Amino acid sequence: MTRLQDLDRRDALLALAVHRFVSQDLGLDWQNSSLLIALSGGLDSTALLSLIHILGTRFGFRLCAAHLDHGLRSESGQDAAACADLCAGLGVPFFCEKADVATEAKNSGQGLEEAGRRLRYAFLERIRRQTGSDWLLTAHQADDLAEDILLRLIRGTSWPALGGMKALDIARRLLRPLLMTDRTDLEAFLRRQGLGWREDKSNQSRDFRRNRIRLDILPLLKKENPAFADVARNLWHTARLDESDWERRLASLAVRTEDGIWLSAAHLDTLCPADRLRAFAQAIKMTGAGQARARTLFQMENAWSGGRRHRQFLFPGGLRARLSPQGVIFEK
Amino acid sequence: MTRLQDLDRRDALLALAVHRFVSQDLGLDWQNSSLLIALSGGLDSTALLSLIHILGTRFGFRLCAAHLDHGLRSESGQDAAACADLCAGLGVPFFCEKADVATEAKNSGQGLEEAGRRLRYAFLERIRRQTGSDWLLTAHQADDLAEDILLRLIRGTSWPALGGMKALDIARRLLRPLLMTDRTDLEAFLRRQGLGWREDKSNQSRDFRRNRIRLDILPLLKKENPAFADVARNLWHTARLDESDWERRLASLAVRTEDGIWLSAAHLDTLCPADRLRAFAQAIKMTGAGQARARTLFQMENAWSGGRRHRQFLFPGGLRARLSPQGVIFEK
Repeated sequence: MTRLQDLDRRDALLALAVHRFVSQDLGLDWQNSSLLIALSGGLDSTALLSLIHILGTRFGFRLCAAHLDHGLRSESGQDAAACADLCAGLGVPFFCEKADVATEAKNSGQGLEEAGRRLRYAFLERIRRQTGSDWLLTAHQADDLAEDILLRLIRGTSWPALGGMKALDIARRLLRPLLMTDRTDLEAFLRRQGLGWREDKSNQSRDFRRNRIRLDILPLLKKENPAFADVARNLWHTARLDESDWERRLASLAVRTEDGIWLSAAHLDTLCPADRLRAFAQAIKMTGAGQARARTLFQMENAWSGGRRHRQFLFPGGLRARLSPQGVIFEK
Repeated sequence: MTRLQDLDRRDALLALAVHRFVSQDLGLDWQNSSLLIALSGGLDSTALLSLIHILGTRFGFRLCAAHLDHGLRSESGQDAAACADLCAGLGVPFFCEKADVATEAKNSGQGLEEAGRRLRYAFLERIRRQTGSDWLLTAHQADDLAEDILLRLIRGTSWPALGGMKALDIARRLLRPLLMTDRTDLEAFLRRQGLGWREDKSNQSRDFRRNRIRLDILPLLKKENPAFADVARNLWHTARLDESDWERRLASLAVRTEDGIWLSAAHLDTLCPADRLRAFAQAIKMTGAGQARARTLFQMENAWSGGRRHRQFLFPGGLRARLSPQGVIFEK
């Protein structure tokens, strides 16, 4: 069993930086917790398992790992076997299942990527409960973060969500300890540790938007600014600060009633326009409808600010917002 | 003289949308004002001049236009002549000068683009004062906005400045009436009006980052989301709302003293971390030093929040921030 003090100095520093990110930046007390690692067998998740395993000897983690074989590539069985070998070598309990993502995608009308993602997270959450794990750990790293920010920019995601995926999602019991770590550092770590990993050829396919961003768009931005990973990290940090501030300010503003989601005028009138816009967006999210159209939100905010409080606005998914002098109700 | 009521319906709607953006979204009462148009002779500024000229008959604008010949391309004299012709045809007073941008760039050690920009705005501001114009109008449109957002993303600009250039810069007396308008709409307008424009070949040169963004990066984003111009507009709107809210909250927080810029603990402790970060950045801007390093700002915020208030932080340009229990002083 590798211990921190036996490691190459660079590897020890890397492992401690990962620990510091979780315990200090995210403020999570994870000592002695049970952790489930989502293991694909690729570079990132192999490094995650190895790093967390090393940290585990000092911080008392109980570990297990899970792998969902998507059955989409001929070599997927070999990926699963490599994951099993890795876990056996480390003495980490390993859970593996095979899914039929192609059939699921066809039946649900979703894309392969989305269907795979949904099945994978359902499987991982099931194993997390089954094993009594406190947190599910995924291996998203700083390059994934930069991709995610671009993906969100392209989709029209607003601030602060534009700052990228959460590193700690308490509702989903999800933790991303590597989100500030460069992929090149993970690769160097694995090489020094003498650990191999599997390459997923579908990561090269331009059929998926995420791959096009990674292969075609991100390299152009990195050419303009070689420190673009720092840009992503700084944006993420600022977004988190704003987000926690807004969550505090907008907490419990929207109320679930029999008719729908209710925002009272007494509350709305204390907010500045930017926060009012976010309160509307939050209420719409609570109805379970899809992403609200920004333009309609602007119009609604304009109507409210301008005192035109006898109007209605329609959103996709059959959602209706009714303004009145008393407040706004969002109803399906 | 073309009047609004004589226009093709599409052109009238375009002109009125531009007017509405300035008077309603920007809240500027510009009726009967004196406007100086920055005229390059390209598509955008030719359309700007023509649209503002048409609106002028209804809203009582007094117009003039100015062109700086950068002397960098053999055809630059023809650009200047075309601008002069256009203005003569509309009866708009025209001011033209020739600058030696190449020599200025060499002497100042700046790039051609930056030296040109500096000389151009100095010239335009001089003509604005000389003609007693209330506002300088530039022809930046929605594609420029999308480019600008990408440029800011690449540079690591934080929110809300990430939302792109201002449409109304009161300190610089600068107005960008076309910022929400698609370039294709301007082109269609000029064709229907039978107006020609000059093509600047240097816009195709990949020696300039802005051109690389426009020619290579932006098309990839538009391929992923054909409505990317809407994304840019929505981001811009949200950023403006946040900005005005923050400007209100952070106004007069930083005080200029003999020693430097001063932020009192009494003020700082009322702010949430995200706002405190912006207050630090604002104070640094007031010292005249360059852009603050995000990482140092985060460290400083961390020290302040954590009660470690006997520390110093160094920023580029010889700037020092000294924390004390009474507050923070930024000194050169």
